Amino acid sequence: MSRQFSIRVPCTSSNIGPGFDVVGLSLSLYLTLRVTVTPGGAPHPRLAYTGTGAAEAPLDAYKNLTTRCALYVLRANGISAFPAGVEIDVHNEVPFGRGLGSSGAAVIAGILLGNELGQLKLSTSRLLDHALMIERHPDNVTAALVGGFVGSYLLDLPAEAAAKKDVPLSEVLPEYPPDAGETWGPHPPAPPEGIGHYIRFGWAKEIKVIAIIPEFEVSTAKARDALPDTYSKADLIFNLQRLAVLTTALARSPPDAGLIFQAMQDRVHQPYRKHLIPGLPRILASVTPSTHAGLLGICLSGAGPTILALATDDERRIADTIVEEFKKDGIKCAAEFLHVTQDGAQVSEGHLP
Amino acid sequence: MSRQFSIRVPCTSSNIGPGFDVVGLSLSLYLTLRVTVTPGGAPHPRLAYTGTGAAEAPLDAYKNLTTRCALYVLRANGISAFPAGVEIDVHNEVPFGRGLGSSGAAVIAGILLGNELGQLKLSTSRLLDHALMIERHPDNVTAALVGGFVGSYLLDLPAEAAAKKDVPLSEVLPEYPPDAGETWGPHPPAPPEGIGHYIRFGWAKEIKVIAIIPEFEVSTAKARDALPDTYSKADLIFNLQRLAVLTTALARSPPDAGLIFQAMQDRVHQPYRKHLIPGLPRILASVTPSTHAGLLGICLSGAGPTILALATDDERRIADTIVEEFKKDGIKCAAEFLHVTQDGAQVSEGHLP
Repeated sequence: MSRQFSIRVPCTSSNIGPGFDVVGLSLSLYLTLRVTVTPGGAPHPRLAYTGTGAAEAPLDAYKNLTTRCALYVLRANGISAFPAGVEIDVHNEVPFGRGLGSSGAAVIAGILLGNELGQLKLSTSRLLDHALMIERHPDNVTAALVGGFVGSYLLDLPAEAAAKKDVPLSEVLPEYPPDAGETWGPHPPAPPEGIGHYIRFGWAKEIKVIAIIPEFEVSTAKARDALPDTYSKADLIFNLQRLAVLTTALARSPPDAGLIFQAMQDRVHQPYRKHLIPGLPRILASVTPSTHAGLLGICLSGAGPTILALATDDERRIADTIVEEFKKDGIKCAAEFLHVTQDGAQVSEGHLP
Repeated sequence: MSRQFSIRVPCTSSNIGPGFDVVGLSLSLYLTLRVTVTPGGAPHPRLAYTGTGAAEAPLDAYKNLTTRCALYVLRANGISAFPAGVEIDVHNEVPFGRGLGSSGAAVIAGILLGNELGQLKLSTSRLLDHALMIERHPDNVTAALVGGFVGSYLLDLPAEAAAKKDVPLSEVLPEYPPDAGETWGPHPPAPPEGIGHYIRFGWAKEIKVIAIIPEFEVSTAKARDALPDTYSKADLIFNLQRLAVLTTALARSPPDAGLIFQAMQDRVHQPYRKHLIPGLPRILASVTPSTHAGLLGICLSGAGPTILALATDDERRIADTIVEEFKKDGIKCAAEFLHVTQDGAQVSEGHLP
């Protein structure tokens, strides 16, 4: 008898201005897996992929990020291989490389898939530990897993665990051969307990989210390379002050635009990523609460190029202005009007429609 | 007919671990002014001072920090001198130079005194602007003014106001001669509008505050000089992550000790101030939730030397341990069991008892 289940993971926006590598916001575009497991079926998983990125996503289960993460969870918990007869239909709404957490969603989908396939019943905290072995920045994966608007920190590992911390990603997620069976390779290390801690902030019901998604990709690695290794004390204090105010200000109803707009300013990553996103300085300067009543704040989503605008009103006009600004540089954009999803990643029995 | 009024300002703790120059917590030790104004009285204010620091506090109204701040508010608002017949009885509970916001309290008391003497009816935001011209770090003065647990940011001033921003403190608070009358000196600049913005966080009712106050002083200037000019990106992210979690975690009931203790770790100021406070590294390492159930977190109060411990239970034993640790270095301490004051600075008609 075959088992059917589904996994649905939201996309996420991180940083939200001053919260570099700290805050994540889970939003209403989804990566969905419909999974069937038929005992006695084929030894290697079969993958099919529809939706955004279908042309690019690897369909080999030993190359695809989601199934590799699932295999990591299995192997880190003593199960050497996928069960037989796994069929996965992926449907994706999250554009790749745009700063909307597509890889974070793929990682969380894989962690949950591994947990289900191995019937491991891992706790949320333990699921997060596994995700943080693969993706060392907690912002997107935490929000994708638990939903809502969250802040997280990575724990300093004790000396005992420090050696494990430095495990290179290639050991956690090795290049599997196309027939990685039960006897293949060493098992990866299990994550130390409690790597990441998080808290869910409130989110005022009035605040809507507009994502303006340009048609080009920004590589997260390249966007990270653009950042300096050190920061002045003044820039550090600038971001600490604004982040402290922002997380609570976005929870207060009605939202205070005067407080929030300034609290969404950033000196840690946006100034260094301007050259990767033509038009960004112009957009940040020209879309303000004085030009667009109803606007609360505007920032890069993750490493960009997506622009995130938070607003209580007039979302269409805010979107149009940003789209027009990108058009001046010959860049086409999609505008998505999203809401904050409070549920996080969901596993349900049966196939979602 | 003479007017009588009182001003009562709480002491404050700032930083609370990762929130350097950001968060302030208003606590239950007070600076109290009992003021009488008798029209036709003496031309210069008479000051009397009792309580903590009475031996050190200048009684010349043109040298005392509180009355100088009051004169700044008067002169920045077009009033050249103190009214005649001002008598001020100061009673102080806030120890000087211990990291409990004694100068922030003196500044706020002075701002409110100037506002009352000039009958200026300045708004809270405008009072804060005046305070931030004197004390450029918003954490203590904001908490002393508005009460509770607050986060604040300083606005980047527009180019127009930038010139005013760089006004040296000596112009705002000059060295007055002992007979600074109506014709003395130029009026200082009024502050630009809206220099500082703040938000009040919640504070879980279970969380009690223990202040262990060593008998020696640490100069804030010296403690600032101990800090580096630049920080690594890793240390910046360390503090951003913890501060984001901490401000919301301290508002949640019941408080989560596992989450809060790690969120109170800091890499921006405490590691650089260890040499100013003997015993601090030992105290931070030896007083933990595993050695002291009921402890939530421990940190320097402001620039120190006071140690602040947050706890839900067992406050006496936590205090005893910290006092004992200081004693090993031959340092005597007072332990104060305080609560968070929600009211902030208060002005009331008549003399407080």
